[in-house]
Amino acid sequence: MKKGQNSKLKIIPLGGLEQIGMNITAFEYEDSIIVVDCGLSFPEDDMLGIDLVIPDITYLKNNVDRVKGFFITHGHEDHIGAIPYVLKEINVPVYATKLTNGIIEHKLREHNMVTKVKRKVVKYGQHINLGCFRVEFIRTNHSIADAAALAIYSPAGTVVHTGDFKVDYTPVFGDPIDLQRFGEIGKKGVLALMCDSTNAERPGYTSSEKTVGKTFDHIFADHVNSRIIVATFASNVDRVQQVINSAYKYGRKVVVEGRSMVNIITIASELGYLNIPDKTLIDIEELKNYPDEQTVLITTGSQGESMAALSRMASNLHKKITIQPGDTVIFSSSPIPGNEKAVSRVINELSRKGADVIFQDTHVSGHACQEDIKLIYSLVKPQYAIPVHGEYKHLKAQARIARELGIAKENIFVLSSGDVLELDENGAAVTGEVPVGDIMVDGLGVGDVGNIVLRDRQHLAEDGIIIVVLTLEGSSGQVVAGPDIVTRGFVYVRGSESLMDEARMVLEDTVSYCEQKNITDWGKIKNEIKDSLGEFVWKKTKRRPMIMPIIMEV
Amino acid sequence: MKKGQNSKLKIIPLGGLEQIGMNITAFEYEDSIIVVDCGLSFPEDDMLGIDLVIPDITYLKNNVDRVKGFFITHGHEDHIGAIPYVLKEINVPVYATKLTNGIIEHKLREHNMVTKVKRKVVKYGQHINLGCFRVEFIRTNHSIADAAALAIYSPAGTVVHTGDFKVDYTPVFGDPIDLQRFGEIGKKGVLALMCDSTNAERPGYTSSEKTVGKTFDHIFADHVNSRIIVATFASNVDRVQQVINSAYKYGRKVVVEGRSMVNIITIASELGYLNIPDKTLIDIEELKNYPDEQTVLITTGSQGESMAALSRMASNLHKKITIQPGDTVIFSSSPIPGNEKAVSRVINELSRKGADVIFQDTHVSGHACQEDIKLIYSLVKPQYAIPVHGEYKHLKAQARIARELGIAKENIFVLSSGDVLELDENGAAVTGEVPVGDIMVDGLGVGDVGNIVLRDRQHLAEDGIIIVVLTLEGSSGQVVAGPDIVTRGFVYVRGSESLMDEARMVLEDTVSYCEQKNITDWGKIKNEIKDSLGEFVWKKTKRRPMIMPIIMEV
Repeated sequence: MKKGQNSKLKIIPLGGLEQIGMNITAFEYEDSIIVVDCGLSFPEDDMLGIDLVIPDITYLKNNVDRVKGFFITHGHEDHIGAIPYVLKEINVPVYATKLTNGIIEHKLREHNMVTKVKRKVVKYGQHINLGCFRVEFIRTNHSIADAAALAIYSPAGTVVHTGDFKVDYTPVFGDPIDLQRFGEIGKKGVLALMCDSTNAERPGYTSSEKTVGKTFDHIFADHVNSRIIVATFASNVDRVQQVINSAYKYGRKVVVEGRSMVNIITIASELGYLNIPDKTLIDIEELKNYPDEQTVLITTGSQGESMAALSRMASNLHKKITIQPGDTVIFSSSPIPGNEKAVSRVINELSRKGADVIFQDTHVSGHACQEDIKLIYSLVKPQYAIPVHGEYKHLKAQARIARELGIAKENIFVLSSGDVLELDENGAAVTGEVPVGDIMVDGLGVGDVGNIVLRDRQHLAEDGIIIVVLTLEGSSGQVVAGPDIVTRGFVYVRGSESLMDEARMVLEDTVSYCEQKNITDWGKIKNEIKDSLGEFVWKKTKRRPMIMPIIMEV
Repeated sequence: MKKGQNSKLKIIPLGGLEQIGMNITAFEYEDSIIVVDCGLSFPEDDMLGIDLVIPDITYLKNNVDRVKGFFITHGHEDHIGAIPYVLKEINVPVYATKLTNGIIEHKLREHNMVTKVKRKVVKYGQHINLGCFRVEFIRTNHSIADAAALAIYSPAGTVVHTGDFKVDYTPVFGDPIDLQRFGEIGKKGVLALMCDSTNAERPGYTSSEKTVGKTFDHIFADHVNSRIIVATFASNVDRVQQVINSAYKYGRKVVVEGRSMVNIITIASELGYLNIPDKTLIDIEELKNYPDEQTVLITTGSQGESMAALSRMASNLHKKITIQPGDTVIFSSSPIPGNEKAVSRVINELSRKGADVIFQDTHVSGHACQEDIKLIYSLVKPQYAIPVHGEYKHLKAQARIARELGIAKENIFVLSSGDVLELDENGAAVTGEVPVGDIMVDGLGVGDVGNIVLRDRQHLAEDGIIIVVLTLEGSSGQVVAGPDIVTRGFVYVRGSESLMDEARMVLEDTVSYCEQKNITDWGKIKNEIKDSLGEFVWKKTKRRPMIMPIIMEV
């Protein structure tokens, strides 16, 4: 590792600070760039028809020769989801722990890219040298196994990036977070700490994953006479393990339902992250061979997603499972902000079918609360604090914690995506900005839906469309067919005949007016139609449908 | 009041049990029908472009000669919002307490109906005789002043309808809920209790509105050097009163901002429900004459509504108020389910501008919690329990409470909208169903947007539209112009030229095919176009835009 001449380290978050998801951060020192995480985010309410959102990586593409590799902290979509898209453009190795790598591999296979991307499985404690950087993976706990924090050693100093983490002294799988190593690295001197802010507004400590297992045991003991259905996050392998443990203990067979759940459980079992006793797991087709009270279903849909297995069961659209009075449904999750209403809807539908719905003490967070965050700060003792992972209010809440712990205000950086933070032990400052943004993915299209298309979709969604077609005779400019009107999403036409008749008259008047005034410019004719019809429709309905005149020529 | 011959009382909820809002319930005895409340609901996420939703009152229209009057429990939109629409069709008197009537009057004025609807102001304790019914208004507490429960006396027995209520021993305005009267009526024998279920899942008691006043005092004391902005529900006059009290105490001038807030405060002041010390209220234009730390703004927008005053301030779109570092913004509200994300967005924007956002202990609910519900049951001691006002899970939660209090399972009725419950002291049963449903209001249109229009809007919103136009020569059926393609909301066309070129070729092939095969039926031609273009687009983009072929003839 060469020592730079007065060079500073640059930290550039390329996403993830304006919204939940899309975590991706570049670390740059002289000719070396490494990237931590490569996540997607799910579309905001106003991104109509969009499937997912990936980060704009123009900056990385412009510096592609210097990019050495990607380091992935854990296997959640908001940290790995953009890999197939980004690695198509920047083909460098991806470093991750075993389970994380397994999930990435599955994702790449779905995109037919599994042979194209070089991947390296890393163990906790292992160090990777890439250009000017050395990166160490440190064991943490989270709501998915094999989560890692990273110690990023650069000539300008060490940065500790926690990834998403919690402090779990009694994890279900593997060992507790390696607090000793955090302390050891801290003791040697850490330039900056980039710490998970998700729960920075929540006082106290985050409970151990094991507490949920105890609740499961109680619920199983209290409901020996009914079928049990547990909905949780597909990726929470430890949660699934605990359902399986309780099922085994109470002599129930387990069915796993929902595509993403089946995928993750398959990967986790193959890699040894799930311990399923023989003959416990059965196929959904075998359910009929067992009485209800000897079965458990583990399913997707804990967020009320309309196409997920549980939602389909709730609304009688599931082909194989019908909710029956007496079923016990456990929501082992809490709603992600924005999903509250959808979750409520599913709960209501389940209750209406007679199911007993349980959602108390059946979930713990995977993120550190205030006291846990203080613990990490106290072990790492960074010179600079750079809160990451959260909405602005969460970053701000962690900044307040850092202040309380004695870090000077000017050493705390609440960054925005695109900010270039330059730092070394002599100082730190935001010195520039790189282009960042949302690239929308719709079907196979990446970036072909932009703001204009979204604005049109919004307009169409609000008030529908009125299409006006007319055919002009080329030489004379006379109308030889039409004007005809077709509408979609505007009004229910049967029942609105008189409105449509009047609209047709307005249109004919406009066309005659254009003919009389010898207006032959198509643009002008279209504008006259838009104006007159738009005004008429607004007056009559107080709506502003999209009006689209189309002129043809024979 | 004549005594019916073996007649039963019918209770028919016409809305409000499937979703929050749209509270309206018919009570029927022989030739008399009275209606309690007449609310609207706000559109669900999938009701694209819809402004509001009102109940289908076909049943009332079909029995219009028997409908005697409307009794309104309080002035919230989900209890009064449909009055202008419903009273247009069923013109009978509306009975309400003073403030409720004032708010209804304002609403009718906006609809130019103020002289057309007969209204009667009722005092607590007053009894109204209408047909076979006598209705008594009983004082309750709620998040709006002048809320009433109703005792509905019929020859078949007495029904107590709580309206929306809480038990507040120390209300800000007026007196506590008239528990003595509930007890007295209960002692005489009550057939059925229809009790507010909103908070039936919450243990304990609902705190007094006055507790919020204490929090305000503390916040005002702690922030003497900054401007204070308080966002709350426009209709919560007591909350506004408490902000004014704190402002006066700490020598601040008060500005009220947001149309609905100004409206309600004007009505409440005129009717004597607000006590504003002289020279406390100032116009927004006068703000500049006072230092920031001597002012308070009370504003709409506590639910993150994008057009409300606070949201416009947060996103720098407000003409008169700019958020400054150091501003203290109090959210005196909790998010209504579904609004969580919008509220978070506003909080993030305010924080980003340097405002200090406070939302702890700054709100109490207006609805009774479990212990309060038990209190009312214990005073009223009804034969039958009919939980009202809530999602299914809330109704169910109240049913559990009723069971705990010893009401037999078969005497508890969790109804659906449209159910006809027939009851007297000898028995109760759901004996039929009447038509109910959502009538969607979009601009001036009432009911002209139905499921087909919504489905089209959804389709347009997801993937946009491709319009294909061609002109045929009438006698020969030959194509003389087109096919032309226009798209909206599909792809950003510049950048997708090759896709559009290919689509045009697919289209030309299809049209040639139709000509060769002598397909002249327009329906068939359109289907060929839809199929071939749809398949092409799906293969290329994995999207399904609406494809709309339009054929003209010359």
